[in-house]
Amino acid sequence: MPQLGLLPRRAWAALLSQLLRPPCASCTRAVRCHSQVAEAVLTSQLKAHQEKPNFIIRTPKGTRDLSPQQMVVREKILDLVVSCFKRHGAKGMDTPAFELKEMLTEKYGEDSGLMYDLKDQGGELLSLRYDLTVPFARYLAMNKVKKMKRYHVGKVWRRESPTIVQGRYREFCQCDFDIAGQFDPMIPDAECLKIMCEILNGLQLGDFLIKMAWKDVRHEMVAKKGLAPEVADRIGDYVRCHGGESLVKQMFQDPRLSQNKQALEGLGDLKLLFEYLTLFGIAKKISFDLSLARGLDYYTGVIYEAVLLHTPTQAGEEPLSVGSVAAGGRYDGLVGMFDPKGHKVPCVGLSIGVERIFNIVEQRMKTFGEKVRTTETQVLVATPHKNFLHERLKLIAELWDAGIKAEMLYKNNPKLLTQLHYCESTGIPLVVIVGEQELKEGVVKIRSVASREEVAIKRENLVAEIQKRLSES
Amino acid sequence: MPQLGLLPRRAWAALLSQLLRPPCASCTRAVRCHSQVAEAVLTSQLKAHQEKPNFIIRTPKGTRDLSPQQMVVREKILDLVVSCFKRHGAKGMDTPAFELKEMLTEKYGEDSGLMYDLKDQGGELLSLRYDLTVPFARYLAMNKVKKMKRYHVGKVWRRESPTIVQGRYREFCQCDFDIAGQFDPMIPDAECLKIMCEILNGLQLGDFLIKMAWKDVRHEMVAKKGLAPEVADRIGDYVRCHGGESLVKQMFQDPRLSQNKQALEGLGDLKLLFEYLTLFGIAKKISFDLSLARGLDYYTGVIYEAVLLHTPTQAGEEPLSVGSVAAGGRYDGLVGMFDPKGHKVPCVGLSIGVERIFNIVEQRMKTFGEKVRTTETQVLVATPHKNFLHERLKLIAELWDAGIKAEMLYKNNPKLLTQLHYCESTGIPLVVIVGEQELKEGVVKIRSVASREEVAIKRENLVAEIQKRLSES
Repeated sequence: MPQLGLLPRRAWAALLSQLLRPPCASCTRAVRCHSQVAEAVLTSQLKAHQEKPNFIIRTPKGTRDLSPQQMVVREKILDLVVSCFKRHGAKGMDTPAFELKEMLTEKYGEDSGLMYDLKDQGGELLSLRYDLTVPFARYLAMNKVKKMKRYHVGKVWRRESPTIVQGRYREFCQCDFDIAGQFDPMIPDAECLKIMCEILNGLQLGDFLIKMAWKDVRHEMVAKKGLAPEVADRIGDYVRCHGGESLVKQMFQDPRLSQNKQALEGLGDLKLLFEYLTLFGIAKKISFDLSLARGLDYYTGVIYEAVLLHTPTQAGEEPLSVGSVAAGGRYDGLVGMFDPKGHKVPCVGLSIGVERIFNIVEQRMKTFGEKVRTTETQVLVATPHKNFLHERLKLIAELWDAGIKAEMLYKNNPKLLTQLHYCESTGIPLVVIVGEQELKEGVVKIRSVASREEVAIKRENLVAEIQKRLSES
Repeated sequence: MPQLGLLPRRAWAALLSQLLRPPCASCTRAVRCHSQVAEAVLTSQLKAHQEKPNFIIRTPKGTRDLSPQQMVVREKILDLVVSCFKRHGAKGMDTPAFELKEMLTEKYGEDSGLMYDLKDQGGELLSLRYDLTVPFARYLAMNKVKKMKRYHVGKVWRRESPTIVQGRYREFCQCDFDIAGQFDPMIPDAECLKIMCEILNGLQLGDFLIKMAWKDVRHEMVAKKGLAPEVADRIGDYVRCHGGESLVKQMFQDPRLSQNKQALEGLGDLKLLFEYLTLFGIAKKISFDLSLARGLDYYTGVIYEAVLLHTPTQAGEEPLSVGSVAAGGRYDGLVGMFDPKGHKVPCVGLSIGVERIFNIVEQRMKTFGEKVRTTETQVLVATPHKNFLHERLKLIAELWDAGIKAEMLYKNNPKLLTQLHYCESTGIPLVVIVGEQELKEGVVKIRSVASREEVAIKRENLVAEIQKRLSES
C-alpha cells in the first residue's frame, strides 16, 4: 500500500468531509474543484512515492537502537549482573515477549493502563510483558513449580511518557533474580540484598544505599504480627533518627520496647534480617526510608530500592540524577493468583535497572574519553602487493578454522597503508603480511601494530605462533 | 475487571439473544426464567472469581517458555553462533522489538499479513519486527552508515499458523550476520557462505549442503549481465546434471560456453565465487537448487539455504524433517528504500534458524539421555549440626566475595543427607562442611561429591584451596 504523507492525508480528510456533506447547488462547483485537487494530490503522491519514501526514518517513541559502542557497554553490564546471579546458583529462563492479556490483568493496579496491547488480528488478546515478575509467577503456577531460584534478562515494555534524559524508555531491559519457595524466614531475603550489594559494588558506580520502605515494615508488624500501632510508631521514631545498621540493637536496649513482649515479636523478623545482613557484611548499606511506597500491586512484604548516593562526578562531568537503580521485595500472593486452587508460592526477588546504570557508565566514559573496541578481531590478514587476494583468502580461512579472530579488507588490491590504518582505528593488535618475497621464501610476517615490529616466521608455524602470542598478551 | 469463564460467557450470549427478541405473551415466562438463571450465573461467577481465577494458564499460541534445561541448550547454540560471528570481525547491535508500521510496509510482499500489529492506543502505529534485516537496513539509512559488518541476535514475530512439531513458532530467535558496503565482487558473499559452514560444522548436526537458487542465478545472468536466455539455459543444463564444485570448471570446458563471450561474462561472478569458496575449502558444500525461490521481497541477488542431509539418527531416534536451518542472500536495494534520495548500500548476509537447530539438539539429548546442569554452582556450604546457620552465612559470603559460585539450603537446620543429595541431584562438585569439631579446631572440611573424599583444611586457607581445586578440574 503506498504511503500517504501526513499533510496530504489531512488534505484528504478535509476533502472527504466536504464530499460526505449532502450536495447542494452552491457547493457543486466546490466539489468538482476538490475532486480535481484530489486527483492532483493523488498523482503527485504516487510520483513522490516512486521517487522516494515520504517519511522520517526513526524508531518508535521511547525506544532506541543500540550502536555497537553502546552494545559493548551494555554487554559488560549484563555480564557482570548475570555472573553474580550465577554465583548465587540461579538458573536461566525465558518467557515470550507477550502474554495473554488476561494473564496480566489485575496484577499492576493503576499501571495497567501503561501496558502495550497487540491489535486484535482475529486471534487472542495479547499484551507485551510489563515486567518479568508476573510471567515468572505465571510460569511457576502453570508448571506447578513450588521451588525455584532463577534469573531472567529480557526486555519489557511500558507506555510511560518517556523522559529520555533520565534514562526512562518505553522499551527497556530488566535483569531479575528471584527465589520462589517456602523457606525459613529472612534467609532468601537477606541473599537478595546481598546480591544487590555485590552488583552495585561490582559496577563501581560509587557509594550507594539500599532503602527499605518503613511503611511496609510497619504494616507487616501491625497487620500481620499484631503489634499495637503505638508500639510500631515508637519503633518508627528509631527509624526516623537512625540508619539501619545499629537500629535493631538500639531498639532492644530501649526498655519500652525490649520489655514489651508484643514489640519483641514484631521486631523478630527485622532482627533476624539484620543479623543475616551483618554476617553478610552489608548491614551498614541498608537503611529505612519513610517516603518509599510500593510501586506495584503484587508486593506483599517489605520492598527495597537501591539508590546511588552521588554519581561519580569529576571535573567537567555533569552530575546525573538517576533515582533508583535496583529494586525488589516480597510477593507471596502473586503465584496464587494464577493457581486454580489459589495455592501460594512465597517469592522474593530483585530487579536491576540496566538502563539507568547504562546511562551513568556511558556518560562517565564520554567524560573520560574512554574508547571501547566494538570488535574482538585479533589479526588482520594483509598484503603490500597486488594480486594477493587468493593468498589472503587461503590464509584467513586457516586462521578462522583454528578459531583465531581474523579480518581482511574486501578489496582485490588494497593499499598496505589502508590496511595498517584499519588496524589502528579498530584496535586490531596483529597483522599477518604476505607478499612476493614471503611467498617465495615460504614465510609470512607477523607485525605488532603497537610496536611496529615485524618478524618472519615459517608459513606452517603461523597458527601456532599467533596462538602463542595471543595467550601471552 | 472480573474474568468471565468461557462456558458461562456462551450462556450469557444465548441468554442475551433471548432477551433481545421482542417480548411476546408466550415467552414472557421464559424471559423471567432466564433472568433468574442469569442472576444465578452472575452470582456464581463473582463467587468463583473470589475463590480462584477462571482461566487456563498458558502462553499465547505459537509461543513457549524456555525452561532452565532448554535455556542451557539455547545458550550453548547461541554462544557458538555468536563466537563465529565475532571471529569474522562483526560488531554487535540491537534495535527495538517494534518499529513504526510504515517502516516495515512494502518490505515483505505477501508475508506482510503475518506481521503483529500493536493496538492503536492513541499514539503511533507500530508492528513487531518480522526479521532483523529490515531493522538493520533502517538503522543504516537513518544513521547514514555506508559500511558495516554486524551481527544481531534477537526475537522476531510472525503470525504463521504454528506447526510446533516442526519447530515453527510465532515467536522465535534469529541470529543474523550481515556485511553492508560497496566492495569488490563476491568476497563478502563467499565469507557469508564460509560462516554458514563454520557454524553448521561447529554445531555437529551431521552432513549438510548449502543450496543456491538457480532461478536467481539465471535471472542475474540474463537480466543484469545481458546473457541470452538460451545460453543461460545451456548453463542450466549443467546445473541440472552436476553439483556445485566442478560445475564452473566443466562449463568452461564446454566450447559452446567457453567460446561465447557473453556466456563467459555471465559466468564471471559465479566463477569468482567458486574460486573463493575453493580457497575457503567449502566449494563442495555448495550446490544449486532448481526449485528454491526467494522467500522475501527484498532479496536482489542469489539466495542460499542450508539444509541438513540427514539428521543424526541413532538407534531408537526418530528421524526429524527440519528443512532449512540457515538462509541468506544479497539485498542491494533495501537500504535505498529508506533513504530519502534512494542512495543504495549493497548488503549481503545470513540468518541462522536457531529454533530448528534447537529442536534437533534437544531431541538428540533426549535420545541419549544426556543431562545438562542448569546451574554453575561449584560449592555447597553445609553443616551436619544444628544451629550452624550463622557459620554457614559467614562462610558463604566469603566465597561469594571471592567470586566462587556457592549455594546453601535456606533452612535453619537442614539434614546433612539432604544437603549431600542436593549436590548430587544438581551436580555441585564440592561441599564445604562446618560443624562443631571443625569450628573448635579452626578448620573446615572440603568434600568431593564424586569421590566422597574429605579433607580438613585451615579456615583461613579455604578460599585459596577451593580456587586451586577449581582451576585444576
